[in-house]
Amino acid sequence: MLTEAQRGRLEVVLVSPRNPLNIGAAARAMANFGLQRLTVVAPYGPTWREAHSAIGAPEQLQNAKESATVADAVSRSTLVVGTGSLTYRKPEQPVVSLPDLGPLVQREMARGGEVALVFGSEKHGLTREELSYCHLLVEIPTDPRQPSMNLGQAVALCLYELVSRSLQAGTSALDEEPDEPYPPAHSGRIDLLAGVVEQTMAAAGYSPSLMQEANRHDLRLLLRRLTLKERDSRRVLGLFRRILWRLKRNQNGQ
Amino acid sequence: MLTEAQRGRLEVVLVSPRNPLNIGAAARAMANFGLQRLTVVAPYGPTWREAHSAIGAPEQLQNAKESATVADAVSRSTLVVGTGSLTYRKPEQPVVSLPDLGPLVQREMARGGEVALVFGSEKHGLTREELSYCHLLVEIPTDPRQPSMNLGQAVALCLYELVSRSLQAGTSALDEEPDEPYPPAHSGRIDLLAGVVEQTMAAAGYSPSLMQEANRHDLRLLLRRLTLKERDSRRVLGLFRRILWRLKRNQNGQ
Repeated sequence: MLTEAQRGRLEVVLVSPRNPLNIGAAARAMANFGLQRLTVVAPYGPTWREAHSAIGAPEQLQNAKESATVADAVSRSTLVVGTGSLTYRKPEQPVVSLPDLGPLVQREMARGGEVALVFGSEKHGLTREELSYCHLLVEIPTDPRQPSMNLGQAVALCLYELVSRSLQAGTSALDEEPDEPYPPAHSGRIDLLAGVVEQTMAAAGYSPSLMQEANRHDLRLLLRRLTLKERDSRRVLGLFRRILWRLKRNQNGQ
Repeated sequence: MLTEAQRGRLEVVLVSPRNPLNIGAAARAMANFGLQRLTVVAPYGPTWREAHSAIGAPEQLQNAKESATVADAVSRSTLVVGTGSLTYRKPEQPVVSLPDLGPLVQREMARGGEVALVFGSEKHGLTREELSYCHLLVEIPTDPRQPSMNLGQAVALCLYELVSRSLQAGTSALDEEPDEPYPPAHSGRIDLLAGVVEQTMAAAGYSPSLMQEANRHDLRLLLRRLTLKERDSRRVLGLFRRILWRLKRNQNGQ
């Protein structure tokens, strides 16, 4: 069971949802489980306006943030969890079954992190690009003959599991707010670092332009696997900035 | 995790659903968790036809049974579980939280029982009369500020919990089919018994006609609390039939 304060650090991110009823159902599930923070990424205009202005729309919907990209939406998050069926995809991150996600979220909360649950569009789920911002993927254990879930139902299941179900008993020790001296780096910081590392690779002639897109993708995943602390991420960023500055100065000097 | 055979003995009952999208969502969740048996009680005609004939309606919907009453719908069930928010109602049966329902259903399955999950209409949930056919009630732990869940989402949560979530590990011993010499009495048998007991009460002058409706209600609940075995229910039924026959003969003889 997450505390009220911890629920305030759990965010739902819907990527390009198409059906206003699904957006409404997701927001209602958030209300059922006491969550507030909803972000909608690149919503389809008419759908979004319809959902937003629906009669009796929960406040989660009225107060929802809008974001252009997944990167923006999760930039403050320290643990980004992607959802969806993995039937047609070979995952590049660790995959956990929904019943096992609770302890991971709880641990992240206990060290002061911010958690984002990212749901892809109804049609095709999260793209490979969108998934690359996720630290891990969660899979809902469904029947292999019909693995694909309705968006509103998938949101409800994840929130039930994380807010009500996991660690039902004996979590009182975790109810206290964290006293973690080294909070984890948030996603925006990692992206900033990735950008500097990428420029450094280019400046060092490590990454031929042909490979840049692929390297960028791999780099995003690699940096997330490191689960950097905030202060360490600053240090690494400083280091790469220094290297980059030096490389560029040398180029200009030649 | 329930076995395929056990999932065949788990039935979803929707009482007077109004929204065809909810009926469809319930059926889709059943497909996601590998369930087949759906019964709709006293459906609203136009809604039902629309849901039934929707493009891509899952086979759970196409093959759904229709029933006039909850009593009929659950007559073959040995464990009837009512769902819904209990905010405005004082429950007359034991209430379990959804995370605790799994072991109870598992036990019933292990002794060869048939389990029905009954969901009330979107507007007002299950009525007191409908609830009286339930052995126990399940409550989904939600935020007290917004306890009422969407029907399709509530079905998804219950099935996730019962089919996928509960007893995730170490259920291999329960995977075998039961070898229970005394299966539980099904709901129809209990209703038959209740009818004979009620006639007996009337014939014995125990139940003044003013009290008949209230006594009938209490009797339904009482007989379910007993959790009779099938063979015991036959014996008790035989006994009451005998008593009733004797009482009536005496009346006629006077």
